[in-house]
Amino acid sequence: MQASRIVLIGAGNVATHLGKGLKNAGHTIVQVYSHTQAHAQELAAQLGAQHTISIHDLAPADIYLVAVKDDAVSEIAKQLKLEGIVAHTSGSLDMSILKSISGRHGVIYPLQTFSRNKNLELSNIPFCIEASDKSTEEALAALARSLSGNIHFISSERRRTLHLAAVFASNFTNHMYTIAGDVLEKQDIPFNILLPLIEETASKVRSNSPRDAQTGPAKRLDQTIMAKHIDMLRTDDTLQAIYKLLSYSIQERK
Amino acid sequence: MQASRIVLIGAGNVATHLGKGLKNAGHTIVQVYSHTQAHAQELAAQLGAQHTISIHDLAPADIYLVAVKDDAVSEIAKQLKLEGIVAHTSGSLDMSILKSISGRHGVIYPLQTFSRNKNLELSNIPFCIEASDKSTEEALAALARSLSGNIHFISSERRRTLHLAAVFASNFTNHMYTIAGDVLEKQDIPFNILLPLIEETASKVRSNSPRDAQTGPAKRLDQTIMAKHIDMLRTDDTLQAIYKLLSYSIQERK
Repeated sequence: MQASRIVLIGAGNVATHLGKGLKNAGHTIVQVYSHTQAHAQELAAQLGAQHTISIHDLAPADIYLVAVKDDAVSEIAKQLKLEGIVAHTSGSLDMSILKSISGRHGVIYPLQTFSRNKNLELSNIPFCIEASDKSTEEALAALARSLSGNIHFISSERRRTLHLAAVFASNFTNHMYTIAGDVLEKQDIPFNILLPLIEETASKVRSNSPRDAQTGPAKRLDQTIMAKHIDMLRTDDTLQAIYKLLSYSIQERK
Repeated sequence: MQASRIVLIGAGNVATHLGKGLKNAGHTIVQVYSHTQAHAQELAAQLGAQHTISIHDLAPADIYLVAVKDDAVSEIAKQLKLEGIVAHTSGSLDMSILKSISGRHGVIYPLQTFSRNKNLELSNIPFCIEASDKSTEEALAALARSLSGNIHFISSERRRTLHLAAVFASNFTNHMYTIAGDVLEKQDIPFNILLPLIEETASKVRSNSPRDAQTGPAKRLDQTIMAKHIDMLRTDDTLQAIYKLLSYSIQERK
């Protein structure tokens, strides 16, 4: 593997997890930029890097990784010209947003949910690569391969689709966990009683398609139980609406 | 452990998984009843048991486990009188539905999703016990403890709440996986690219509350991305409605 000199633009969850992974893989994190001094400083200290709060003060590097909120990417793109490869990590932004920063630009999108306080094994995470040209693609793929064995070449359009799918598979799934916890809380039942069920539900779709794995009252058209459940949710209009809509959707997509 | 002589009433997923687990734990499955001859025969053969398709022809046993669809339980309850303990395995039926069958009755509800073609480790599954009297409770708890270290004593009312929470945590979660797969399918992207994300999302709530673990466009109020996603779903009214409702609910429950 060729070690790269990397500048991290951003100091949030994605920048933190990627920065640590890249350092562990033998790359040098030259510098961390964040517009918040404390964040830049803290992550830079963890990575043995310099830090800066001025976007006009970036160090020379092989690769600039832009891991900030989507809105901030376009702000940065307006102000910046760089030598070297520039890549963002967003699921929903076009690659072309980086065109004005550098001719050599691309995307390295990790299809994963990153939390501040949870360590994460990067080696199995799908990394979606897109690049302005072949040599940039090779450089970004090599960088991703130093982190994970799960590399995909994906266009901006397909990446948007992946991101939308990920909202259902992760963000909305997690919200189902939140609702389940809220339902239990009313009877003082601790959330962790659900953990084996949550784990098995996630594990099932390794060996069966989710359509085949579907169980429950809506799947077997058990109107008696569904009516009971809808009645139990009568004090919360939103939950009742969710229960009805998802039960309808399960029946519709059978 | 005291080995029990057990009759299984039912031959579906729950009966199959419990039957195998009970046999492995050293109990004797005396007989399997199902109104479908082939099902009764097949499961009985696996368990080294007799089989019957006549509910009036049940063998003498210590414990009768009723693991059939909810509607079928009340049908059976109308016709049956038994010596010995009778327990059902349903999340949503009151214990009292079994009163007419035997004075000694109860519930042993495994909080898990069971699939026909997937082996399952029972030892960590929460078993929810309820019983008509102390000695029946002890017998059912002993039976459950021979399968799992995760035993709870739960009233019918609390069990209904658990079952409702399980619909969100498992059935509706699995439906989110189905939708994610359908979204990807339109661009010929295979579902398994989502597996690391699904696994991490399930794993996160072991160490964080789901509310704290929430990420995504709705959580960070990213209107630009949400509008883009809603537009991408324009050809499917149900999916669009689900996206809007769940995004609203995430914002409402923050």
